[in-house]
Amino acid sequence: MNKLVVIALGGNAIKQAHECGTSDEQFVNVETTCHELIKMNRLGYKIVITHGNGPQAGNLLIQQEESKKLLPPQPLNIVGAMTQGQIGFMFQNTLRNFFHLAGKEVPVVTVVTQVLVDENDPDFADPSKPIGPFYTEQEARVLREQKNYLIKKVKPNGTKIWRRVVPSPEPQMIVEAGSIKSLLEARNIVIAAGGGGVPVRLISDGTYQSLEAVIDKDKAGNILAQAVNADIFLILTDVEKASLNWGLENEKPLDKITVEQAEKYLAEGHFLKGSMGPKMTAAIRFVKAGGEKAVITSLSRATDALAGNTGTIITRD
Amino acid sequence: MNKLVVIALGGNAIKQAHECGTSDEQFVNVETTCHELIKMNRLGYKIVITHGNGPQAGNLLIQQEESKKLLPPQPLNIVGAMTQGQIGFMFQNTLRNFFHLAGKEVPVVTVVTQVLVDENDPDFADPSKPIGPFYTEQEARVLREQKNYLIKKVKPNGTKIWRRVVPSPEPQMIVEAGSIKSLLEARNIVIAAGGGGVPVRLISDGTYQSLEAVIDKDKAGNILAQAVNADIFLILTDVEKASLNWGLENEKPLDKITVEQAEKYLAEGHFLKGSMGPKMTAAIRFVKAGGEKAVITSLSRATDALAGNTGTIITRD
Repeated sequence: MNKLVVIALGGNAIKQAHECGTSDEQFVNVETTCHELIKMNRLGYKIVITHGNGPQAGNLLIQQEESKKLLPPQPLNIVGAMTQGQIGFMFQNTLRNFFHLAGKEVPVVTVVTQVLVDENDPDFADPSKPIGPFYTEQEARVLREQKNYLIKKVKPNGTKIWRRVVPSPEPQMIVEAGSIKSLLEARNIVIAAGGGGVPVRLISDGTYQSLEAVIDKDKAGNILAQAVNADIFLILTDVEKASLNWGLENEKPLDKITVEQAEKYLAEGHFLKGSMGPKMTAAIRFVKAGGEKAVITSLSRATDALAGNTGTIITRD
Repeated sequence: MNKLVVIALGGNAIKQAHECGTSDEQFVNVETTCHELIKMNRLGYKIVITHGNGPQAGNLLIQQEESKKLLPPQPLNIVGAMTQGQIGFMFQNTLRNFFHLAGKEVPVVTVVTQVLVDENDPDFADPSKPIGPFYTEQEARVLREQKNYLIKKVKPNGTKIWRRVVPSPEPQMIVEAGSIKSLLEARNIVIAAGGGGVPVRLISDGTYQSLEAVIDKDKAGNILAQAVNADIFLILTDVEKASLNWGLENEKPLDKITVEQAEKYLAEGHFLKGSMGPKMTAAIRFVKAGGEKAVITSLSRATDALAGNTGTIITRD
């Protein structure tokens, strides 16, 4: 009992794809998510929460761009930190309230988090992560010259088909791990490493310098889960289970698999890059590092999956 | 020794009035501030940091407004939370780095903070705090109708002379006080209640609901200082001392004064509303609640003022 679970929330825990992203809409989604989180806590799990920030950071980047004649656009590291405050606040407020309504006073707290990456990560040489607004060829040229942005064509046809790409390096360490552990020892529910954390590199004088890059939030979630010695790493997404041959006629949902099987399926290309691929990679890393199990499932099936009744469960043997 | 000081940083600790507010400019200001914070720590003071967010929240509000045809503008509670992430991150990163360069590994952490206010606060009936962009009369009318904003004329002449005003209620309690204390016990340097915190009211079911309001950051700093049992409350601003007859020929800077004197001068109208007034009010409250002393001075004189050599120092007797 009292297993420690790190929960990585997907984008739909905060903003659904069809929504435009008003604060009211986002609070409703956060409430739905918090109902499930409270259930897990009631079943005796201690929880730590991390979350994506794609739609929120994307909107902020567009807003920076749209106002650039009036105000200096804030860079990606700052925008990422903003979304940690934004999303962290919504969960912190809602989760504390729901605990109160359930008769428990539980401190819930968001820790603004930096995550160390290797400056020699191969993704710096060939960045792959598209972010922010779409540009015309002319706008792309100006941004390349003035800001040294790397801009790639992301659609075959159209006018606004260019987009900035940034590196998505592998996370190595949670800078604020000590503070997060102190809060857990004091029985806080902690929200950390939102949006994968603000990426920082270690420079020669031993200081951390933040970077315009995006860390995959599930991979950062694994580093967080290892840092707090979590028993379980729960990755929530929009499907109940990961699948072999996804979307094909012979699609086969995965139940309980070993790390070895997971690695084999991953190598065979069953899991989409930028989608199930990094989730499975993060799950594999967590279990290989000594975690009891990693679980990939949907929000609504989360408690069932923790009980072993659904989801894709990855264990050592 | 090892007195605990809560430091309330003014806007110029992050963005100077003549600057446009690029990330690079803001990091330079944060570095200047952190040099002074490190000095205080070297003198044996334990520090907790809070800060304003006026320019950053103002910019975000303008960016929300400028992009409203594309994206839903986020409300003031969310924008406030964003600035806590933004500014907290800059201090957290820089302060950790400077400690490292000074040969000390000190955990520095930003706690996203909610601050309880009284929903019957008189400022809700007659809001006084102007925020965000300036509007034309026509824009003001539309916003009044569509969003129920309270909009007031803030300049006598001109076209864009209307501005939204929001309540600035008195802070009552730091919701995350327990978490902040746990971090201090674990020897963290904590950044909290940024921008005065996200204001929340207590509703009948015992939950906290956030509000579109702005809490004065020095008044919130006093509540924070009381919550962590600080010995000293240090309010940094752009002048070395508070003054009687400020800006007049007979201006008289104040050195050491008692709470009683401070209250008398405040009642006599010596301190400007929205400027030195709330700082003096916050200082008085801190000392009356049992704090050893409150100090009002400029960033560059902060260590001297803590040593008792300058600044306006408010004590019980």
